[in-house]
Amino acid sequence: MYCEQLVKPDGRQLTLYSRRPIVVAGLAPSPFPLPQEANPHLRWHPLRGEWVAYAAYRQGRTFLPPAQYNPLAPTRDPAHPTELPAGDYDIAVFDNRFPTLALHAHDPPALTVATAPAGGHCEVVVFAQDACASLGTLPVSHIVLLLQAWAERTQELAKRPGIAYVLPFENRGAEVGVTLHHPHGQIYAYPFVPPVPARMLAQERAYFAEHGQALLVDMARREADGGARLLYLGPEAIAFVPACARYPYEAWVMPLRQTDSFAALSAGQREDLARALKTVLLKYDGLWQREMPYLMAWYQAPPDGCAHPETQLHAQFYPPYRTRERLKYLAGTELGAGMYAMDALPEESARQLQDVHVAWNMAEEIA
Amino acid sequence: MYCEQLVKPDGRQLTLYSRRPIVVAGLAPSPFPLPQEANPHLRWHPLRGEWVAYAAYRQGRTFLPPAQYNPLAPTRDPAHPTELPAGDYDIAVFDNRFPTLALHAHDPPALTVATAPAGGHCEVVVFAQDACASLGTLPVSHIVLLLQAWAERTQELAKRPGIAYVLPFENRGAEVGVTLHHPHGQIYAYPFVPPVPARMLAQERAYFAEHGQALLVDMARREADGGARLLYLGPEAIAFVPACARYPYEAWVMPLRQTDSFAALSAGQREDLARALKTVLLKYDGLWQREMPYLMAWYQAPPDGCAHPETQLHAQFYPPYRTRERLKYLAGTELGAGMYAMDALPEESARQLQDVHVAWNMAEEIA
Repeated sequence: MYCEQLVKPDGRQLTLYSRRPIVVAGLAPSPFPLPQEANPHLRWHPLRGEWVAYAAYRQGRTFLPPAQYNPLAPTRDPAHPTELPAGDYDIAVFDNRFPTLALHAHDPPALTVATAPAGGHCEVVVFAQDACASLGTLPVSHIVLLLQAWAERTQELAKRPGIAYVLPFENRGAEVGVTLHHPHGQIYAYPFVPPVPARMLAQERAYFAEHGQALLVDMARREADGGARLLYLGPEAIAFVPACARYPYEAWVMPLRQTDSFAALSAGQREDLARALKTVLLKYDGLWQREMPYLMAWYQAPPDGCAHPETQLHAQFYPPYRTRERLKYLAGTELGAGMYAMDALPEESARQLQDVHVAWNMAEEIA
Repeated sequence: MYCEQLVKPDGRQLTLYSRRPIVVAGLAPSPFPLPQEANPHLRWHPLRGEWVAYAAYRQGRTFLPPAQYNPLAPTRDPAHPTELPAGDYDIAVFDNRFPTLALHAHDPPALTVATAPAGGHCEVVVFAQDACASLGTLPVSHIVLLLQAWAERTQELAKRPGIAYVLPFENRGAEVGVTLHHPHGQIYAYPFVPPVPARMLAQERAYFAEHGQALLVDMARREADGGARLLYLGPEAIAFVPACARYPYEAWVMPLRQTDSFAALSAGQREDLARALKTVLLKYDGLWQREMPYLMAWYQAPPDGCAHPETQLHAQFYPPYRTRERLKYLAGTELGAGMYAMDALPEESARQLQDVHVAWNMAEEIA
């Protein structure tokens, strides 16, 4: 992995990752010439027992781009700088200009509920220079690089003060609110372990205490043995529709051996995990012969310096469609009660995805 | 309150509620002549520690209605029966033909995760006979009747075996997945206290143990005193945008005095709560001069026969819009991490809603 750090004129950091030596023409660009003081705050929700983040400056964008302007493409015209320089590199990570969480947040307002500075950090991860690519169409070696970049970002962000959890994710498609088609994801570094991973970790700790094994490693083994919901099984990685799917086409991707974080992956695990991920992504896009929208979240151990034999690095995919034409809406019972209701069985969705044949030129991919 | 119970030809129960003596022409109709065996099941999600419900038969509808057919309107043409009879009544409640939860569910499948019958009950609540009405346009006395009906449904459902929680809610608008425009809501009776109210109750218990007061009663008092986010303040009820809103136009409605359930409301509380509710609903529809979509959930104490001085009956509204044109999507940080991120401040949304002037003919309403 090659890596180079740059600083944008507005002070934001840009890091480039590549499979080849990095060659960059010009300085790190930014569509925004001046620094922006990001000062988000947190408010405590006493009834749910969780923090809510407020970043009200986010609507104050004065930036008027030309038509067809893609801020995530490499800069072609220096008069209209994008977020990325022209040059030879594969993946770019930069500080979000409109972060929900910011390390230097300060002086939260005094309110009828407890408040705090919304410390933390938000990054944008551009998966590739080609605006028409998508994560699944990238070569395996490029996806391997992304797994390495996520590992490095996690370790870098964990060094900053007050970071308790690092979550890489991708929102894909207009159906989940994404307007930029260029393949990209985000990384949120939280000043606390957020409710969803905190709950998972608690469940995993309880399971480990009882069984002396990681919950997800046991679940994955049962899926590998049964096969009814299996989407990929390689020497080091697995993908399947979980028996307890909350979304009709939900899928999980993970290593087979217990591995608590991106940083703990071996080269062999990374490669097979990239294959598992690519398989799921190509099956999604192949199912209805169009780009499947989804939310992809990667869960790993909190970067707290402790061993986490109870937890397992893994991705969860939540696609919003329940049939080719119909979205699954989260409504009364899901958002109001927290009980998800499904009218599709995971076994049936898995069978449909199993029937999507995907293949790619492996010799070429690994080269 | 007048009330009458009927049974549909397919065995489902229909209950009518009215402010006047009920007059019904003909028997209880059903669009479906034959009984349906509903057999949903639950699967345990070991990583989230929650149940997920599967009701796969729901897609097997063979029913082909005529154009403009509205199953929630009173039956006009006996050749095309709807869910409701013609006659004089205000509100109708009937068993959902496609329930997510069913008392007689049995023999769940054996899987790689724990399973259970999806016991419980699902009802549809038709708010009014007029398909063009909406909850907010109904007279206060009609909304009072709905509060009474919810109280009676809660008590009736709580008598059935294994019911641990009763949640009335309304999904309103195509944006939250509702295709039937006729004003209606639903009631889910769960065989367990679902995760969201369970979490709230735990937070309320902890607050009560520390302060000897109900958390929401204290929160409401602070909102009444401050006024910055207040939408309605009457002698017995209050509505406000919570300081910790997770949706830009979120609003909460509740009695001022500690009251743990619909059944515990006094006549005076019911009337003022109906006014608070109507005010919020009219402000929502007035904000952009169009029907505001939302999810409305009513939380109350579990009907377990115990006193619940820690909890407060209240409604939470989650409208999906963040501006007139833009939806707020729940994406990476909300669904993946469980931390909601807002780019609007609750104080600003409250000010916009405060500026919507609503009035109705009070003399007429109470008559």
